[in-house]
Formats: sequence, structure tokens, C-alpha cells
Amino acid sequence: MKIIIDAMGGDNAPQEIVRGAVDAQSEFGVDIILVGREDEVKKCLADCGAEDNLHITVADAPDVIEMCDDPTSVVTTKKHCSMAVALRLLRDGAGDACISAGNTGALLSGATLIVKRIRGIRRAALAPALPNGGSGALLIDCGANAECTAELLLQFAYMGSFYSQSVLGCESPRVGLLNIGAENNKGTALSREVHALLTEAGASGRINFIGNIEPTAIMENGADVVVADGFSGNIFLKTLEGAAAFVMRSVKGVFYSGVKGKLAGALIASELKGLKTQLSVSEYGGTALLGISKPVIKAHGGSNARAIRSAIKQAIAFVQAGVTDEITRNIEFMKVKDEKNV
Amino acid sequence: MKIIIDAMGGDNAPQEIVRGAVDAQSEFGVDIILVGREDEVKKCLADCGAEDNLHITVADAPDVIEMCDDPTSVVTTKKHCSMAVALRLLRDGAGDACISAGNTGALLSGATLIVKRIRGIRRAALAPALPNGGSGALLIDCGANAECTAELLLQFAYMGSFYSQSVLGCESPRVGLLNIGAENNKGTALSREVHALLTEAGASGRINFIGNIEPTAIMENGADVVVADGFSGNIFLKTLEGAAAFVMRSVKGVFYSGVKGKLAGALIASELKGLKTQLSVSEYGGTALLGISKPVIKAHGGSNARAIRSAIKQAIAFVQAGVTDEITRNIEFMKVKDEKNV
Repeated sequence: MKIIIDAMGGDNAPQEIVRGAVDAQSEFGVDIILVGREDEVKKCLADCGAEDNLHITVADAPDVIEMCDDPTSVVTTKKHCSMAVALRLLRDGAGDACISAGNTGALLSGATLIVKRIRGIRRAALAPALPNGGSGALLIDCGANAECTAELLLQFAYMGSFYSQSVLGCESPRVGLLNIGAENNKGTALSREVHALLTEAGASGRINFIGNIEPTAIMENGADVVVADGFSGNIFLKTLEGAAAFVMRSVKGVFYSGVKGKLAGALIASELKGLKTQLSVSEYGGTALLGISKPVIKAHGGSNARAIRSAIKQAIAFVQAGVTDEITRNIEFMKVKDEKNV
Repeated sequence: MKIIIDAMGGDNAPQEIVRGAVDAQSEFGVDIILVGREDEVKKCLADCGAEDNLHITVADAPDVIEMCDDPTSVVTTKKHCSMAVALRLLRDGAGDACISAGNTGALLSGATLIVKRIRGIRRAALAPALPNGGSGALLIDCGANAECTAELLLQFAYMGSFYSQSVLGCESPRVGLLNIGAENNKGTALSREVHALLTEAGASGRINFIGNIEPTAIMENGADVVVADGFSGNIFLKTLEGAAAFVMRSVKGVFYSGVKGKLAGALIASELKGLKTQLSVSEYGGTALLGISKPVIKAHGGSNARAIRSAIKQAIAFVQAGVTDEITRNIEFMKVKDEKNV
């Protein structure tokens, strides 16, 4: 198996990206293609003592897409950026999966336009795994599609369920619909339409639909897959991140206030650090781009070597799982009759 | 000034409601009407030693609306419940404001159908104040209207801004639009339409519109008023509550694990309790129902005496502020031409 990595994407590129790739190569025995400015990447490899590792190759890409770049520039003005080169290598079969910690919008555009979607899937979705007090909940979509139709949400439910089952190892993933109440009639007209479609899919036994789910219940490990339109999914995700950071800042404040606080802080410093890690959204691995015809993973922009290593591990599982085949086999069940194309 | 209180609403009714009312009466010197089963309420008053307080009267209501009741039952099958009686007293001028800790949907329906909306306001909205690391952010709407038009959101912005200014004492409230990115073109078609309307309102100097705001920025005290449709506003609010509870559970876990953790916990027990209070959404007062022709406040369902006392303090400020008059004076600016009625 060969994993293609955009070595120039993310806040800590290329050093940490390369370091993570080197670690993962030795740990998982996988082949790696690092894409980026060849001299820079090779220097990083040398810094890791991996310049002679035959399982790691470098593909040159003279340009880099920045966070401020327009997402579509990955296929227009910045065709030769590391992300675009990596995605073309994936499309052309040079590797089995692609990872980037760069501009999310650009990765989504690039994956859609270069690698293409699975036939029948109308939109790719971003599916991060979130801390939920259990083994993590997969949120789909978390922001790729602000405006959704019922069919899109039906497809998200299937794709999320298959991914959770085969990649995350959840036997019968409990699929919930993000809503503002648990009762069937809650939410918007779209919520009710999707609820009916998912109930039908649940009755057929193809997914395990457990109904509407509220944010509080998600945090209490109430679902394995949370289906949402990209707008409310993103509000949910960002509130989660913001609230966790807010509370941790407040908790930290306690440990800086007075002698007792400082003493208490010293006693449990390592536990608090562990807690912070446990609550960090980025610790739950990269975000899968579901609906693309080959595995693409968005690693967190702030990824360090450890996060990149985790994303590579996740990419390996993604390739082995055959999610794409399963989606393709079930595509007929993911259609809504008479729905206007979007 | 006279405040009408639904003595039977909420998890701790009537004891804590009555106790809170008695405390507020003596502290703020306000007159109070307690609405509920007369014998029960009088017994509670006697328990507080307030049976002879001439500033507190009891209005009998034989029935109580429950959390499981249909919201509209407040004007249909349960016309004689304490909430309905309280709202009719408000409508008829027997008091200046009404507070209930009961069924939120019923209070919203009752206030709309009995007390009525301000002329020109299309929908009442729920506006709680949330912890944000500063003096609190007012969220409008947090769930009354799952489906919104641009006009509704424009009205929420004005109402929230006036309330924040005159009741919460924020001089020039920074009004932000809840969105999934800060740039002007982010979000849905509705987001963009509302952004344009609020930009116009901001340019006229009637509100201080600061643009789109993401959940993380809200938590960093980035806005005083957050405008949202009821669906995403509710997702935001419940995620905030869920995440805070989740993190506090995890923090608590640290203090139960091992000798060092327990010792640290003992050292800062009171600070942790204070922190919990500080993060509690309910500590930031009751939720104002904005758009109703007279002040109505929803106290948290779990309100204790202290929360009821706070809600009464808030109701007094609400009455004194004259928000309703200000909304009425500006109603012409809150209309969107050619918008379909909803």
C-alpha cells in the first residue's frame, strides 16, 4: 500500500509532516510519497535520518496552496501546488490514499474536481470523529455543504454508517439526525423529510437509524454517526471546540489563582494535559472526505508529527475497508425520487 | 411595579419559586402576584414566614401545565393552568411583567396568543444570555422559530440590540450573525440575504452590526448580540450546554482518580464549584421572550430560589427599560419589502 502525502500543507509543514510520515512508515511498513518542494522535503527527510529510506519517495511540486487562497485555485491558478499534484497522483493510481493538512476548501474542491466523486453521490462531505465520552462520534457533514437537500443528507447517513462500520470498527453504528429535539416532528421541513427517509432506510435494515439527536445527547455517547447539513454541523463542531477551549481556559484560571490553586495544579498537571488531549477534536484523527472515489483525508491544520502518523494509520484503514465499494453497491438506495438536482 | 409569577412552573415549584419571590420582594421592594393552587402556594408562603406580606398576593389557578403537555394546550384544554392565568393577568394590566419556569413552548404559545405580539413583529423569539468570558452574549433566537425568513432575522437583530442596550446595559451592543465563517459570503443564501440587511441597518447607525460571527469567536467575547435562526441557535445553545457539562464531568474525573487528584480536588473544591456556576447557562438569568407586547421571561426549568430572584430582577429592568416602545418606534426599519409572509 502506498500513501500520498501533501508535505507542504498545514501550520507545521513540511517538518512535522515529514517526521510523521517517517514514523508511520517504520511503524506500519507502508510506502509513502511525499509531495512538495523537493529540496525542502529532502532536507526534512535528512533531518529525520530517513534520506535513504527506500519506502519513501518525493514528488516535486513547486507551488503551495495557502490558507487564504481561493479553494478553486487548486485547479486553476495553482495547478502545480503540492495538493493538486498529490491529488493527481491519487487519481492516476500512483498511490492508494491521499492526506493533506492544508486548506480544507481547496482539498474538497481538488478532490471533487481531480479525483471525482463516487458515481451517484451528489456531494462529498467532511466527516470528522468527535469526542463524545465513548469511542467517538462521526459527524457528517461538518461544513462542506452549507445548503442541503434531503437526498444529500440521506447519502451522508449511508456514507457515515459504512465508514463508521468498516473504518472505525463500530459494529452496528447508531445513526442519529442532528436536531433541536428528540421527537419525530422536531426541526425544519427538511429535518422531517430526512427523518422519514432515514426511518425507511432503518426499517430496511441497511442502516441503524435511532432518530433525532440533540447535541447534549451526542456528548453523552448517544450516537456513533451524526447526520447534519453542513451549516448546523459546522455550528455544532465549532461550538464544541470553542466551548471546550473556553472551559479549559476557565479551569486553568483556577490553577493560577492563589497558592492552593497552584499547588493543586502541580499535583495534577499531567492529568490535566491528558484531559486537554482527550477533549481535543484533532486528537480523534483526520477528517475523511466521504463521497470521493478514492480515500482522501484532511488532517488538522495544526497537525504535528503524531497527528500525521494517526492520519496515515486512518488512511490505511480507509483503504483496507473498501468503503467506496460498499457505497457503490448501495447507491440505488441513496436516491430520492423527483428531487431537484442541486 | 408588580411582577406576576407562575408559581407552579419548573422542576422545583412551588417551593423554590415562592421562596425566590419572597426574597426578591424584600430585596427589590416590588409587588408580586403568585399564580397557582392557592392552598399550596399559601403553605409555601407560610413556610417562608411571608404569609402576612402585604406586597405578595396569590391568584388561584386550579390547573398546571406539564412539560409533556402540548404547548397549545395553554389556550385550549388547560386554560385554567397557572401559566395561562398569569398571562391573562399580564394582558389585563394586573401586573407589569410575567415570569414562568414552566414549559417553554407553552409559554411562547400563551404569550403570543394571550398577550399578543408587538404590532409589526412577525414572531416572538427566545433570547437567553450566554456565558462568553465577558458580560454575557444575548442569543436571539435560541429555538422558538426553527424555520426563519430574512425579515424574522432582521427583527431579531433589532430586538436583541435594543434589549441588550436598555436591559443588559450594553452601551453599543456588537451585533453578530451566527455563521460558519467570518467572511461576508459565508453560509446559506439566507445568511447572505440577512448579512446584507444587517449591513444596511448598521450603516444607518440604528444597530452596531459587526458581521458574521463563528461560535469560537462568540466564546471569546466577540459579540454582545448573536442573531440566529432558531434551528442553528438551538444547536449552538445545546452544544454549549452539552460541551460544558462534558468537560466538567471529565475535569471531575481527574479529581476522583488517585490520591493526588483527590488532594488537588479538596484544595480547590470551592473554586471548582464557582467555575461550574460561572459556566452554567442558567446563571445568566432567564430567557426574555422578545417581540411580545409586554415583558415575559422564561426562567430555567431547574430554577431554584436564587434563579427566580434573578429572573425577577431581570423582569424589573425589562419593565423599566421600555424596550417595547423602542421596538414599536423602529418597526418600519424591520420590514423586508416583498417578502412572503410566513
